[in-house]
Amino acid sequence: MTSQSFFTRTTPVEFAGADSRDPLAFRFYDKDRKVMGKRMEDHLRFSVAYWHSFTWPGGDPFGGETFNRPWMHGGEALDLAKQKAEVAFETFRLLDVPFFAFHDVDVAPEGASLEESNDNLKVITDIFAGKMESAKVRLLWGTANLFSNRRYMAGAATNPDPDVFAYAVGQVKAAIDATHRLGGANYVCWGGREGYETLLNTDMKREYDQLGRFMSMLVDYKHKIGFAGPILIEPKPKEPTKHQYDYDVATVYAFLQKYDLTKDVKLNIEQNHAILAGHSFDHEVKLAFANGIFGSLDINRGDDLLGWDTDQFAMDVKEMALVFHEMLKHGGFTTGGLNFDAKIRRQSIDPDDLLIAHVASMDACARGLLAAEAMLKDEALAGPLAARYAGWDGAEAKAMLAGKMTFEQIAEKALSLNPQPKSGKQEMLEGIVNRYV
Amino acid sequence: MTSQSFFTRTTPVEFAGADSRDPLAFRFYDKDRKVMGKRMEDHLRFSVAYWHSFTWPGGDPFGGETFNRPWMHGGEALDLAKQKAEVAFETFRLLDVPFFAFHDVDVAPEGASLEESNDNLKVITDIFAGKMESAKVRLLWGTANLFSNRRYMAGAATNPDPDVFAYAVGQVKAAIDATHRLGGANYVCWGGREGYETLLNTDMKREYDQLGRFMSMLVDYKHKIGFAGPILIEPKPKEPTKHQYDYDVATVYAFLQKYDLTKDVKLNIEQNHAILAGHSFDHEVKLAFANGIFGSLDINRGDDLLGWDTDQFAMDVKEMALVFHEMLKHGGFTTGGLNFDAKIRRQSIDPDDLLIAHVASMDACARGLLAAEAMLKDEALAGPLAARYAGWDGAEAKAMLAGKMTFEQIAEKALSLNPQPKSGKQEMLEGIVNRYV
Amino acid sequence: MTSQSFFTRTTPVEFAGADSRDPLAFRFYDKDRKVMGKRMEDHLRFSVAYWHSFTWPGGDPFGGETFNRPWMHGGEALDLAKQKAEVAFETFRLLDVPFFAFHDVDVAPEGASLEESNDNLKVITDIFAGKMESAKVRLLWGTANLFSNRRYMAGAATNPDPDVFAYAVGQVKAAIDATHRLGGANYVCWGGREGYETLLNTDMKREYDQLGRFMSMLVDYKHKIGFAGPILIEPKPKEPTKHQYDYDVATVYAFLQKYDLTKDVKLNIEQNHAILAGHSFDHEVKLAFANGIFGSLDINRGDDLLGWDTDQFAMDVKEMALVFHEMLKHGGFTTGGLNFDAKIRRQSIDPDDLLIAHVASMDACARGLLAAEAMLKDEALAGPLAARYAGWDGAEAKAMLAGKMTFEQIAEKALSLNPQPKSGKQEMLEGIVNRYV
Amino acid sequence: MTSQSFFTRTTPVEFAGADSRDPLAFRFYDKDRKVMGKRMEDHLRFSVAYWHSFTWPGGDPFGGETFNRPWMHGGEALDLAKQKAEVAFETFRLLDVPFFAFHDVDVAPEGASLEESNDNLKVITDIFAGKMESAKVRLLWGTANLFSNRRYMAGAATNPDPDVFAYAVGQVKAAIDATHRLGGANYVCWGGREGYETLLNTDMKREYDQLGRFMSMLVDYKHKIGFAGPILIEPKPKEPTKHQYDYDVATVYAFLQKYDLTKDVKLNIEQNHAILAGHSFDHEVKLAFANGIFGSLDINRGDDLLGWDTDQFAMDVKEMALVFHEMLKHGGFTTGGLNFDAKIRRQSIDPDDLLIAHVASMDACARGLLAAEAMLKDEALAGPLAARYAGWDGAEAKAMLAGKMTFEQIAEKALSLNPQPKSGKQEMLEGIVNRYV
Repeated sequence: MTSQSFFTRTTPVEFAGADSRDPLAFRFYDKDRKVMGKRMEDHLRFSVAYWHSFTWPGGDPFGGETFNRPWMHGGEALDLAKQKAEVAFETFRLLDVPFFAFHDVDVAPEGASLEESNDNLKVITDIFAGKMESAKVRLLWGTANLFSNRRYMAGAATNPDPDVFAYAVGQVKAAIDATHRLGGANYVCWGGREGYETLLNTDMKREYDQLGRFMSMLVDYKHKIGFAGPILIEPKPKEPTKHQYDYDVATVYAFLQKYDLTKDVKLNIEQNHAILAGHSFDHEVKLAFANGIFGSLDINRGDDLLGWDTDQFAMDVKEMALVFHEMLKHGGFTTGGLNFDAKIRRQSIDPDDLLIAHVASMDACARGLLAAEAMLKDEALAGPLAARYAGWDGAEAKAMLAGKMTFEQIAEKALSLNPQPKSGKQEMLEGIVNRYV
Repeated sequence: MTSQSFFTRTTPVEFAGADSRDPLAFRFYDKDRKVMGKRMEDHLRFSVAYWHSFTWPGGDPFGGETFNRPWMHGGEALDLAKQKAEVAFETFRLLDVPFFAFHDVDVAPEGASLEESNDNLKVITDIFAGKMESAKVRLLWGTANLFSNRRYMAGAATNPDPDVFAYAVGQVKAAIDATHRLGGANYVCWGGREGYETLLNTDMKREYDQLGRFMSMLVDYKHKIGFAGPILIEPKPKEPTKHQYDYDVATVYAFLQKYDLTKDVKLNIEQNHAILAGHSFDHEVKLAFANGIFGSLDINRGDDLLGWDTDQFAMDVKEMALVFHEMLKHGGFTTGGLNFDAKIRRQSIDPDDLLIAHVASMDACARGLLAAEAMLKDEALAGPLAARYAGWDGAEAKAMLAGKMTFEQIAEKALSLNPQPKSGKQEMLEGIVNRYV
Repeated sequence: MTSQSFFTRTTPVEFAGADSRDPLAFRFYDKDRKVMGKRMEDHLRFSVAYWHSFTWPGGDPFGGETFNRPWMHGGEALDLAKQKAEVAFETFRLLDVPFFAFHDVDVAPEGASLEESNDNLKVITDIFAGKMESAKVRLLWGTANLFSNRRYMAGAATNPDPDVFAYAVGQVKAAIDATHRLGGANYVCWGGREGYETLLNTDMKREYDQLGRFMSMLVDYKHKIGFAGPILIEPKPKEPTKHQYDYDVATVYAFLQKYDLTKDVKLNIEQNHAILAGHSFDHEVKLAFANGIFGSLDINRGDDLLGWDTDQFAMDVKEMALVFHEMLKHGGFTTGGLNFDAKIRRQSIDPDDLLIAHVASMDACARGLLAAEAMLKDEALAGPLAARYAGWDGAEAKAMLAGKMTFEQIAEKALSLNPQPKSGKQEMLEGIVNRYV
Repeated sequence: MTSQSFFTRTTPVEFAGADSRDPLAFRFYDKDRKVMGKRMEDHLRFSVAYWHSFTWPGGDPFGGETFNRPWMHGGEALDLAKQKAEVAFETFRLLDVPFFAFHDVDVAPEGASLEESNDNLKVITDIFAGKMESAKVRLLWGTANLFSNRRYMAGAATNPDPDVFAYAVGQVKAAIDATHRLGGANYVCWGGREGYETLLNTDMKREYDQLGRFMSMLVDYKHKIGFAGPILIEPKPKEPTKHQYDYDVATVYAFLQKYDLTKDVKLNIEQNHAILAGHSFDHEVKLAFANGIFGSLDINRGDDLLGWDTDQFAMDVKEMALVFHEMLKHGGFTTGGLNFDAKIRRQSIDPDDLLIAHVASMDACARGLLAAEAMLKDEALAGPLAARYAGWDGAEAKAMLAGKMTFEQIAEKALSLNPQPKSGKQEMLEGIVNRYV
């Protein structure tokens, strides 16, 4: 197999306008179009995820491989990893995306020892570095997989066995070194096994302390090697573990404050993880901004009726418009981007399905971005919002909030008040949003 | 109606031993029995909740009153409130509980103005004070209802209207004053409307800041008047509001840290709120202890298959045994207690159902406490737990955790490690717990 | 109060085109526009629901009235009911809808006896009949409220007390008589209390038999009086009751078959009830059509993150496009319609909010209908669907399905087969749908 | 490896009494103890499941193998299958269970063709037959795995490709032949892929018809070969598929009626599948009995806070007591049994964990059975239940239910009624149940 022959197409997907019916053309994603003064590509900063798109064979808990990718069978591990890299970079080129992201074990085979694994990773890092010289694509982030190998079955940083903790340090060091070497814009930690299956065998306080220590050391190391990007934690409430310590944005914020990490660690927020935690995507993004810990987005969607991570390609324009509206209000991404932590369905076994899925979702994102821009320009939401809270602009209201009145003074003042409720205008606002999407 | 005639029984419910078949006798709750050196009554610190038991008429979103309590009809508001108080104190006496708890509006009618409401509350406070002189029962906590009146429909402290904020201050001042006067052991805040129905009309950051200010002032005021107990926040994720800011223990912990409130504010944790937030009761309690913010418990149960607050009487011995096991490890309650934030089903319309429900649940709690004591004595769970983490007792492991080794040093050390996973023994531990309950 | 003064506007809402920014103008709902040969109005058959819009005061389980409607206070019950009717019919006129729907107790006050209640209903029925002579609006359906009064707390047809069963018969007879008198197109049964709170006190088999009997008698009676429309059952899985017997479409279909009711009883399907049961709206509609029991729709939306019936106004164009696509394939409604079983949020206290909400949702429905029409014309979904199953058009495949081959014959034939999976093309189809909405 | 060396123990687990602390001794399961006149073993009819216990390597969606069973590595497929069989039968012996259950692919490797797969199955069937001659263990049921192989990714009987349908027939024929040869008491169908991932590519009506045809042919074949046991369908709402056609008991009952299968097909009900569908285990069992379609039980438990199938070992005595109470009322199992469709946690990697888990759960079941017996003897639940419905024993009530009164006659009678609600006594009943568990 050559990478060229995996897909039928050889030229990058292009913008063809809203009337196009070609599933391999963009209808809205017009990378050079300016949105609030910046190119669409620079706003959306799309990233293809190595794991779902090139490493996952299509299995689920009740069934095996469906994709039968040529690079997953019948060869020496490193050779197969190189073949996979060929297809991956060809995909990046065809989708014309500016970024990709990977776990160590997605790109390089695990060896019989940590040293061998590290060596494999270095081999692949060199290959990637070479390819990236001539390609457009850059690295949005790297990360280490601390959850698939059985050694991590009871956690990595939070493992009851200190040797596993140490092993995880060794693996993460190699992963952030590789990320640094490749100019990664961020380094991500997803603690899929940092949690518990049962409280009967778990010392939660101790495990949190282990995790705090681990993250503190990683931050120190990042500074030491001059890695400029932030460390990102990706919240997820559960799955694979019954309960994960990085449950949601609020929980991670509590953790970052406790272990004094708010300055160096930001959040990588995912739609599917948000809804598994009982929150809307918009909520999680707004909460992260409110607390100064917004970092990046894993763009995908979960199924509202299912209780596990389906990681489907994001297709809901309205949902994304609201998230991008918040982001644009804050000036958009700095180091972050829209990483497609999304997998084609296991029945989507045609090679082109991989491209079609990305194209359809990139287009939905672009529509969301355009809708957000229009809402912002019109102050469609911001106007009514400011009006709703206008009372707090008064001098006495400001004084209350600034701590310049005591509880008793306010209570005294309240004796003469009889405040009347005002309409929240929810349906009107919903109708307004519908105008834009 | 006299209070005596509401129930058929006139003498307090008594301990009758495990073989009793009388639904109005305790089978396990033997108040003077010593558990780890303390009387059962002093461990469990049961409290009857005024709202569910005396103020709720039995309605639900699709149906009206079912209980037809005599004190809810056909009289002048304050007179009815006094009648209700008669029945309430008679209930406390018959159940032989050491505590009760109330919202301002449960006990005293709202007036046409804040001043009138405050006056009504004072009248009832005097009556309660008089009754409490001769009664055994004390006040576990008081609170203000900042969610039922339409003025609070968009929040109290987090309202877009500063006058509502001020009004809430006025109401809370009166409520904590009343609580203080009655010797309340705690003061509770449940922010049922502190949240949002839609993010389209909500400035979350601003509302969090309002809530932070409100709580800070309340803490200041508490100190000023010499109220010795803690302020307790009761987390709940949703209902009535779509999203509530005091979502769960972790979220409140983030809030307390951000607004520097961890010293004075603790948590009042409820089983039903825990499961609505996606957590086990045990999880929430352990997390609160791990972060030094455990305060008190609202004891009830939710329905695992329903998505709203059913506030049923707690009957699951195993669930409570695990919670009490954690509590006993930390020495049990200080100011907190087991408040029955539980309501009889709306079909339980016989007056005696109110007593029967409390008795059955008190008994289930007592069984849970005895099971917890036995597990602790046997080190049934603590033993295996210590063994599981024993590796961290080693010198090098301690050094890692204490920050005495750098990331690179640990990574270097890891090159020679090949840690093997050990069984988590979950089923064995589950079998052990089954021995005790 | 006069009905005219309740709303600020006096002329019906009109179509103003997609660019309109007026929340009281239609942007897509153009009632005379032809869609697949039929007027939009005749396709969508919008109906305003009396209960949410005129009878619900804005309360929720934690708070009281917010709307303070003039017709809910300070008058004699029948007079208030007449005032309410004035506003209701004015609303129908302003929204220019062809239908409305009601429960008996929404429109007429309950009396002290069944006879008095029936008399009240007759008074109001006469008033309605008078108003309908001159108004455009017709009755989509009537129904009886068998869940709010405490007598029904343990069910109506499924009550353990046969007198309650009889009383329910009496009430339903009056309600279907009124519906018939007013030319109602359907009669609806929603069994909100036909279910159980706990299996500990429930004989499920017996209760199902009671329900079967009740429905059979109702069907007989309908025929006897010449009521031409179908009886509709509205499935809902839970709330108010823990478990309701009419759980979802499949469950009701099982019931209808068992009690031989499939011919006369159809389904009234609601989005919010669908998702509470774990199904998409589209699924429930498709399943009803597949089994020949589709009747009508309650159009609203639930919150995917909440576990109770929020009954919000439907705003999701894509969701409705898929439902209408199915409906159009089957020729659209016969007796059914789109009944707004939707309530404005309790914070939407401005009178105009009631109009704005309907307008925004009617527009979203109209967009959905237009999208469905376009997809059908293009065979955007139907084309790929037919291709996917084309293999079943073969002679042998048809023979298998028609029962013309035995199990052994097919098994024998299978020995020479090695079928290869084909892509399900899910992302491509999702991208296609996004083109239309 | 020899089977003897896999476990440390060589003698069957024995009953040691309630005070035993040995995790490899029964505290309650005393197989010869008589319960309502029948031996415990004959009541509970425990079955070990081949797939979870011997075929699953410990993986989950985010991690690979943890168990490293010797029979899963490094040998020729049939040899490994034989090794596995050794350990399996040794497990049956050590647990002293009367039954086991299997899928075709659990026990025999899939070949390169259907013929080869069938041959492999025959080889293993012969081996099993040989072992079963001398062993105590019998076959509770066999089944075919129609979900793991990629050919079934879009369903088996409901596949869009008729060749897959045919292939499934071929596979099921071999599986029921093997089951018949081994004297299986039932044959099970679990339609894990009979459903859809998206309605966009699904013709639900057609797929239901395919499934109906498939089941009808299977029933015909069963009669033809003289297989005496029932065909059992195992309902599950979702996972792996987004929606499965055999959603829950009610849905399957609708299906069985439509395709005229109620006589020959019964249900195999699982706790974890019940709660995933939003029902209690008890509900599903009661509903199956109410409709005459109860067959067998998959005994396990799900996690109430997780949205996927955790298949944990059942440990909740109360839940099982209520299920067994219903079962005992109906005389207990006929062909069915308690099949442990349960898997040890992936961290439970000690070989003995497999035994410990079964022992702990068998004991919990035994306690549940004893509690059910005691409740039945005391009429603890049956007494109050009969009293609650006693009104229906009256002559007129019976006449109403028997269809001997018309709707109008009952409505007329209702005019003189004013039924008063009676307490549902839920808390009292919950307290009563707590006495027994």
